[in-house]
Amino acid sequence: MTRIESVDVHDVRFPTSAAGDGSDAINRGDYSATYVELRTDGPHVGAGFTFTNGRGNEITCAAVRALARHVTGRTLAELTADPAAFSRSLTADPQLRWLGPEKGVIAMASGALINAVWDLRAKCAGAPLWQLLAEMSTEELVACVDFHHISDALTPAEATAILDKGLVGLPDRLAELTRDGFPSYTTSVGWLGYPDDKVRGLARQAYAEGWRAMKMKVGGDLGDDVRRAGIIRAEIGTDALLMMDANQVWDVDEAITAMGRLAAFDPYWIEEPTHADDVLGHARINQAVAGLTGGRCRVATGEVAANRVIFKQLLQADAIGVVQVDACRVAGVNEVLAELLLAAKFGIPVCPHAGGVGLCELVQHIAVFDYLRVGTSLDGRMIEYVDHLHEHFEDPVRTQDGRYLLPDQPGYSATMRPASIAEFSFPEGPAWQ
Amino acid sequence: MTRIESVDVHDVRFPTSAAGDGSDAINRGDYSATYVELRTDGPHVGAGFTFTNGRGNEITCAAVRALARHVTGRTLAELTADPAAFSRSLTADPQLRWLGPEKGVIAMASGALINAVWDLRAKCAGAPLWQLLAEMSTEELVACVDFHHISDALTPAEATAILDKGLVGLPDRLAELTRDGFPSYTTSVGWLGYPDDKVRGLARQAYAEGWRAMKMKVGGDLGDDVRRAGIIRAEIGTDALLMMDANQVWDVDEAITAMGRLAAFDPYWIEEPTHADDVLGHARINQAVAGLTGGRCRVATGEVAANRVIFKQLLQADAIGVVQVDACRVAGVNEVLAELLLAAKFGIPVCPHAGGVGLCELVQHIAVFDYLRVGTSLDGRMIEYVDHLHEHFEDPVRTQDGRYLLPDQPGYSATMRPASIAEFSFPEGPAWQ
Repeated sequence: MTRIESVDVHDVRFPTSAAGDGSDAINRGDYSATYVELRTDGPHVGAGFTFTNGRGNEITCAAVRALARHVTGRTLAELTADPAAFSRSLTADPQLRWLGPEKGVIAMASGALINAVWDLRAKCAGAPLWQLLAEMSTEELVACVDFHHISDALTPAEATAILDKGLVGLPDRLAELTRDGFPSYTTSVGWLGYPDDKVRGLARQAYAEGWRAMKMKVGGDLGDDVRRAGIIRAEIGTDALLMMDANQVWDVDEAITAMGRLAAFDPYWIEEPTHADDVLGHARINQAVAGLTGGRCRVATGEVAANRVIFKQLLQADAIGVVQVDACRVAGVNEVLAELLLAAKFGIPVCPHAGGVGLCELVQHIAVFDYLRVGTSLDGRMIEYVDHLHEHFEDPVRTQDGRYLLPDQPGYSATMRPASIAEFSFPEGPAWQ
Repeated sequence: MTRIESVDVHDVRFPTSAAGDGSDAINRGDYSATYVELRTDGPHVGAGFTFTNGRGNEITCAAVRALARHVTGRTLAELTADPAAFSRSLTADPQLRWLGPEKGVIAMASGALINAVWDLRAKCAGAPLWQLLAEMSTEELVACVDFHHISDALTPAEATAILDKGLVGLPDRLAELTRDGFPSYTTSVGWLGYPDDKVRGLARQAYAEGWRAMKMKVGGDLGDDVRRAGIIRAEIGTDALLMMDANQVWDVDEAITAMGRLAAFDPYWIEEPTHADDVLGHARINQAVAGLTGGRCRVATGEVAANRVIFKQLLQADAIGVVQVDACRVAGVNEVLAELLLAAKFGIPVCPHAGGVGLCELVQHIAVFDYLRVGTSLDGRMIEYVDHLHEHFEDPVRTQDGRYLLPDQPGYSATMRPASIAEFSFPEGPAWQ
């Protein structure tokens, strides 16, 4: 019986801003993690985190400390006996909920802690998280989901039917992933901070390495966006997918106008074309880009979608063609399960958001579980891949020919190397002196 | 030329939870303020705050400290030269935006700071905030609004037309408010924590005091809600308005079912019937309650609506019949101006959310300015009134016969008494020892 004795929080920041890595139309910063360790009376430490953009990482750290009372002193058995109730003890805390509700800092901090509990559970089970989830009974999985405020779109009975159906053919899908890995795409070719020559070189290199799907940032000067799209499309030819990501910078009509010009480069999706909260705006843009491209292009979003209620509406309103769940923007694995089930209910593929610090490590588990048990298709499914900061993790992602190899270590691949924590702790670590 | 030399942040908490005051279907806590003082080289201190529910107030304090760099060392003249740009320096900070975006802790902390700048500006002008705003030129007011992500619903030209129209008849409206005060309603009659006898006595007392509009909390056991609604309606007769507030506890279909029973008590509005992010859900409920009541009842929401993009959609989707802006849930006066203009564009009345700590003190300025210059009607307009904690403010609200009297002191009525700050500072104040 594993008991959580204390919660350690580390403010870990990597000085990424200098190189222009990660720069887009909205965000420029130092990739950081609010890193949580659940100390137990057993052999395992539960690791979880949320990703932030540098300054302000101390705020999410403070939020983790405020929420830590919901796990400290409790046994893993207690927390997993009614997983949705545990999740709600954080997300619906009667005092802290006001600070969201279920969004922003407080959702992200909840995610760090809930993810750490899942990491601990998977380590205790001796299984990678994807496997732990895939082997759970339908009843156990449904018990993880908080249906509050989504029951008009997804009932427990519907979730049960989806998960039961997901048992059919599961061994074949697992054998396929074990053999081939999981499809992915690369975002490392076209950050806004990069000059044209670097973009051209990176696109050429990515294609040579086997990538057949890559993403560029847009939302700067439209003329620049058009020129860079032309450079990349020329390098990768017509057989590779080109995704575009505006990081919310456009207004609704501006997005439609911009896509009118960018459609010439056959974009596969336009990501975050406008404000993340704008369900109705995304719906208008989704219809418009489908019209501009004969249905070839669609809207993708999700990396800053606050919670299952936003995803529910994006799906109800036919506002997106790709669900980009993030592993720790929302309140952790339980909330992600709700979003995977919603996506399956509406028949929309999930392509998790990654990059940042450790997001690739986490979302591979989500995508694999989704294929094995929920979405059950690889059609239109890809995991984002960004080649940053993996060296700081004990169990880093492994890719081959543009595909993620199945993680095989117990846990959620969330454990950061102690040396990295020490080196990059803010402000006292040597990297910041 | 006033320069802001430093930003002091106080974690002030009032132990309100013991009495059941402020208890509703979702929230139970100790009413608290993240209280900000802008220290200047001049005679005035700019005061601002955001309201929280107790635990977690230290998180919004940390967020204020992270954002303080955008005001420290700057002159009031610099900050007011391009007010929308100043507002965006906080709400679109390239590192801190990730923690929202424009929602939750980071929006609330932005609100505390931006409100403090407006308080300082009004004090320096020697005018109450409502008067400062009402006397600004249309051009100056439009320059305060960030139209980013709302231009599909409200353009600068449309805002200009609304504000120009608001100049017509302004002296008459001001004379009317000076003579009669501003209509309001009371929320102090029916908190969920109160027993039936207390509810009955408070409803009787409120009616005797002249209140002809009052609000009860619903969203507990439906049978209890129905019984309490009956008690209140019996006390106040058919001529007084009865509003109901579910504080987001219901799912969409549950809300429609519950209102099917509560409609018997002629509710004037149902407030926060479901999750604050659920634009499409509110739209369904709004149509349903209109149908149940022959158009007499409508949906009201806004106290935790994160930003202008959510309000824009609520209005676009015909999801609400009352806009309940909050003074410090969103990023302060600038964001509120956008919301008032959006409401006017769509012809929906604004009834600001109040209560908590100091919210009544702030929103009276918003409602008065809205009547004078934006909405220009009192039809369906009321300011919420809760009889809590006013004694801690230097310039507390004054009410008479169920109406707010016009505030007449310079500033935003945000200044807290030094003795209250000292007594209730957490955790070191005597009240918490």
